[in-house]
Amino acid sequence: QELDDSGEDHDFDYDLIVIGGGSGGISAAKKAADLGMKVALFDYVKPSPHGTSWGLGGTCVNVGCIPKKLMHTSALMGEHIQDARSYGWDVPENVEFSWETLRDNVADHIGSLNFGYRVQLGDHKVDYKNMFAKFVDEHTVEGTKFSKKGKVKKQEQSTARRFLIAVGGRPSAGSFPGADLCVSSDDIFQLDHNPGKVLCVGASYVSLECAGFMNGVGCDTTVMIRSIPLRGFDQQMAQMITCTMADHGVKFLQPAVPDEVVQTDDGRLQVTYTVDGQQQSDVFDTVMLAIGRQAITEPLNLEAAGVITDNKGKIPCVNEQTNVPHIYAVGDVVTGCPELTPVAIQAGKLLSARLFSKSTKMMNYENIATAVFTPVEYGSCGLSEEDAIDRYGFENIEVYHQFFKPLEYSLPHRGDNECYCKVIVDLQDDERILGIHLLSPNAGEAIQAYGLLLSKQCTKEDLDDLIGIHPTIAEEFTTMRITKSSGETPEKSGC
Amino acid sequence: QELDDSGEDHDFDYDLIVIGGGSGGISAAKKAADLGMKVALFDYVKPSPHGTSWGLGGTCVNVGCIPKKLMHTSALMGEHIQDARSYGWDVPENVEFSWETLRDNVADHIGSLNFGYRVQLGDHKVDYKNMFAKFVDEHTVEGTKFSKKGKVKKQEQSTARRFLIAVGGRPSAGSFPGADLCVSSDDIFQLDHNPGKVLCVGASYVSLECAGFMNGVGCDTTVMIRSIPLRGFDQQMAQMITCTMADHGVKFLQPAVPDEVVQTDDGRLQVTYTVDGQQQSDVFDTVMLAIGRQAITEPLNLEAAGVITDNKGKIPCVNEQTNVPHIYAVGDVVTGCPELTPVAIQAGKLLSARLFSKSTKMMNYENIATAVFTPVEYGSCGLSEEDAIDRYGFENIEVYHQFFKPLEYSLPHRGDNECYCKVIVDLQDDERILGIHLLSPNAGEAIQAYGLLLSKQCTKEDLDDLIGIHPTIAEEFTTMRITKSSGETPEKSGC
Ligand SMILES: Cc1cc2nc3c(=O)[nH]c(=O)nc-3n(C[C@H](O)[C@H](O)[C@H](O)COP(=O)(O)OP(=O)(O)OC[C@H]3O[C@@H](n4cnc5c(N)ncnc54)[C@H](O)[C@@H]3O)c2cc1C
Ligand SMILES: Cc1cc2nc3c(=O)[nH]c(=O)nc-3n(C[C@H](O)[C@H](O)[C@H](O)COP(=O)(O)OP(=O)(O)OC[C@H]3O[C@@H](n4cnc5c(N)ncnc54)[C@H](O)[C@@H]3O)c2cc1C
Ligand SMILES: NC(=O)c1ccc[n+]([C@@H]2O[C@H](COP(=O)([O-])OP(=O)(O)OC[C@H]3O[C@@H](n4cnc5c(N)ncnc54)[C@H](OP(=O)(O)O)[C@@H]3O)[C@@H](O)[C@H]2O)c1
Ligand SMILES: NC(=O)c1ccc[n+]([C@@H]2O[C@H](COP(=O)([O-])OP(=O)(O)OC[C@H]3O[C@@H](n4cnc5c(N)ncnc54)[C@H](OP(=O)(O)O)[C@@H]3O)[C@@H](O)[C@H]2O)c1
Repeated sequence: QELDDSGEDHDFDYDLIVIGGGSGGISAAKKAADLGMKVALFDYVKPSPHGTSWGLGGTCVNVGCIPKKLMHTSALMGEHIQDARSYGWDVPENVEFSWETLRDNVADHIGSLNFGYRVQLGDHKVDYKNMFAKFVDEHTVEGTKFSKKGKVKKQEQSTARRFLIAVGGRPSAGSFPGADLCVSSDDIFQLDHNPGKVLCVGASYVSLECAGFMNGVGCDTTVMIRSIPLRGFDQQMAQMITCTMADHGVKFLQPAVPDEVVQTDDGRLQVTYTVDGQQQSDVFDTVMLAIGRQAITEPLNLEAAGVITDNKGKIPCVNEQTNVPHIYAVGDVVTGCPELTPVAIQAGKLLSARLFSKSTKMMNYENIATAVFTPVEYGSCGLSEEDAIDRYGFENIEVYHQFFKPLEYSLPHRGDNECYCKVIVDLQDDERILGIHLLSPNAGEAIQAYGLLLSKQCTKEDLDDLIGIHPTIAEEFTTMRITKSSGETPEKSGC
Repeated sequence: QELDDSGEDHDFDYDLIVIGGGSGGISAAKKAADLGMKVALFDYVKPSPHGTSWGLGGTCVNVGCIPKKLMHTSALMGEHIQDARSYGWDVPENVEFSWETLRDNVADHIGSLNFGYRVQLGDHKVDYKNMFAKFVDEHTVEGTKFSKKGKVKKQEQSTARRFLIAVGGRPSAGSFPGADLCVSSDDIFQLDHNPGKVLCVGASYVSLECAGFMNGVGCDTTVMIRSIPLRGFDQQMAQMITCTMADHGVKFLQPAVPDEVVQTDDGRLQVTYTVDGQQQSDVFDTVMLAIGRQAITEPLNLEAAGVITDNKGKIPCVNEQTNVPHIYAVGDVVTGCPELTPVAIQAGKLLSARLFSKSTKMMNYENIATAVFTPVEYGSCGLSEEDAIDRYGFENIEVYHQFFKPLEYSLPHRGDNECYCKVIVDLQDDERILGIHLLSPNAGEAIQAYGLLLSKQCTKEDLDDLIGIHPTIAEEFTTMRITKSSGETPEKSGC
């Protein structure tokens, strides 16, 4: 870490000011305060263009991981209700679903989390300021309190020896006519009515996850993909995810982009779009744009502090340090940082430990396990097959793979080849594992600890030596035998 | 491996005869045949005293892991149906449960597995003999075919250069008056009627798992524990399991043993038992004994081959080799072998590889991950806290632990301190991990890959460096901070 002793001899209000009360900001603030520092944390949520707003905790808690996983769980419950019949439960064929009940219960839970974060900040002696912050100079921020109606209620300036920028991002807006009629993921979890017939524009995991749960709770759901699904992810897995979603009833328009959205007389949305070069049109109740996210650095007045951003507005960092030595950044706002809550949390925690104690531990952004919570979940860690080929050469890697049917699927006779696992190894290095991929229920649970395979430089033999827990999905990785190069079918016969 | 070349110059019918078509036998037989050996496999299921019988595949497939996990899944479905209401699904308060539907669907699935195993043995060119086998001399077995009514239909002798004993075990019978009126786990999965008000005698995982799913599908369930629950498992975890089961409605009698069972006039079972020194009595519809399992070596006429057994009828082995060099054993029948399907499979596979190819790889019985599928599942790997203290000394270990509430529990407001994880480390060796324990839904999935922690000699720091997948249960292990020695409460505040 470069020395940032500028201001050693000044008398600042705080040792650290954190801008942003999301995953990264809160974790860094708590850690710094625990280490005896005087810390302030500014968090302010600008309402979405549709007026949606929320409390302390950032994206994950309010409009990300938490509501998303809860609504995903609701969709899974819907499947279980149907499957339950084959397990002996005499559930009626048609069970009504209430969007309002789900939404309100999710909101209540989030409310309790918001409250929990407030209490935590108090317990850790962090000064929480529910204010919008921007830089005045490189050691000063101005905090603004707004009324519910957006009027300035109060302004104050605070100084600090060090700053942490953890402002995260917000959904990108579309630029086509009528884009303002569309909601974003910021709005979907609080939508005042059932989304009904819904179009999700974008092929990122935000789009696919939201499409997955809306379809699961009974919405007539279409996804519009501009190019490929889940850019950046293993493409075989991405294709399988969309195929599975299609089997579950989601419609796909690909390659397609929206041209225009117009409100109809009865308040619905007429979407004109170009699919495969042809212009077409359809009417939806809800259109959700999930076409990427934008770091919200612009309002920060970073120029006043001399902090530079990249062409996407993100902040390039070296070990979480910006170009201004006493100003740091963590989380979604950092150039190249995987946009994941545990990443922001860990980076924030480690940074505060380095800054305010003797720790020298750096954040390692490599080989981070992740999950996509589509109807059948996708868990992975390490390289995609494409990236492995790119980096190591086609002839130097091998892929072990296998379809399988989780035991839970047997009684309801669910899809035979819906679940799949694959492991990519480096042939030149003792079959060292480069990537591990799983498409199955609970893939997030099953893949988590396999992250150790990569950090501990494990080989395929280590996997073979691991004794399974039977009957589980996670045990599939302990008995993989079929290689892609063999041309043998990875479809499972018997068990 | 000791040399077993006795009989090199003989002309035997087979290179290998396998006795027992369960997890271990089938895996060894397929592997040996794949390596070019001429292999026969004998499998015969002696009907239970209540007349229950089944097909090829052994305990796991027919009366173990598979029906158990499916019935556990049914119980979980029952919970999900209730929870679904908080997730927006308007499920009726009372959903009828049909034991017959569940049992028949489970039986159908098992039937398809039995068929699959037959096909597999054919594909692998293993001679499958649906016969009871016993030794005639050290290179000869006699196979007997029985009619449905138990009459001898056919007998034949076969010789082989090597033998593998993989006969597994069967439930122990009780010795109290009326024990013959009780069923065992061999019968429960095929019971012709709903178990109704049921008593499970024994505190092993067979007993607790069966009690768990019967309670889950609505049976009035009582467990009778002679001494402690889950002997051999971490006792803090075992206590938590029974507490959780009690919260879910299971009743416990402890310390208690049955004295007598008598059939009442209306065909129910009057059980007299001594609990805490007091004799009491109650009437049940079903009494299941799960008081341990017995290796079924007695009918094998092992004396004819010179194979010795221990005082429990199990076969002491060194690297799966019995005292007779050309006779081997794997699975539940082996002294000290963890009674788990993947263990039997791996031991069988590795043994055949060593015997019939150049492999020298030995089976490692240490640090095997396992799960108990009670209503809230328990997954563990490595040492229990007791064993860690025994081996390393109280002052040389530390325990990290934490209660947590899975996100799925939040909307239905399920138990706050129902889920718990703990990690035991060796303070003298860089906090190397000695044991890892998890009580939660999907604990089997989450714990599987953490088995790598032990085989790769990982430390607590490796766990801290692992980045979580949010929101999952498995991520709980990546952020553990509270030690038992600190006296701090492991109850989670906020999130
Ligand atoms: C729909 C969706 C689903 C997701 N699901 C997952 C998932 O399952 N798992 C996962 O790991 N990640 C998921 N993510 C990503 C995860 O939410 C983010 O990576 C994480 O929240 C980033 O944390 P952060 O601290 O960088 O920023 P944020 O959590 O975004 O927090 C930034 C905070 O700063 C505030 N702020 C911004 N500017 C200012 C200012 N000038 N003054 C004061 N306050 C300001 C913001 O309002 C916000 O509260 C998901 C994201 C989305 C959108
Ligand atoms: C209720 C229950 C639940 C279980 N749940 C799990 C679980 O979830 N996970 C797990 O890993 N393990 C579980 N187990 C344990 C697992 O089933 C056993 O460890 C495994 O089946 C042992 O395999 P094996 O090959 O040693 O013997 P077995 O599978 O018992 O196979 C032995 C076979 O040999 C046959 N046989 C016996 N004697 C002869 C003879 N003389 N001639 C011909 N054939 C003969 C038997 O009939 C049987 O078919 C469970 C066990 C029970 C009872
Ligand atoms: N489970 C989890 O852990 C989880 C879940 C959700 C989000 N997250 C995090 O949140 C981050 C943000 O995700 P994101 O999905 O919003 O962004 P993203 O990954 O940048 O994806 C943007 C998507 O929108 C499409 N798109 C962009 N502009 C478009 C336009 N004008 N018209 C149509 N389509 C357009 C892109 O298509 P092209 O491919 O054609 O460019 C792409 O599919 C992720 O990177 C991730 O780290 C994590
Ligand atoms: N999930 C899984 O992986 C799984 C599930 C089930 C089984 N299995 C395997 O199968 C094996 C067999 O399990 P098991 O549970 O049948 O046997 P076990 O582990 O030997 O347990 C026997 C139980 O019965 C009790 N008991 C014995 N005799 C009794 C008597 N006369 N009266 C009352 N209680 C008596 C014992 O109590 P005391 O403690 O007082 O002696 C003990 O609780 C296990 O060891 C395991 O390896 C695995």
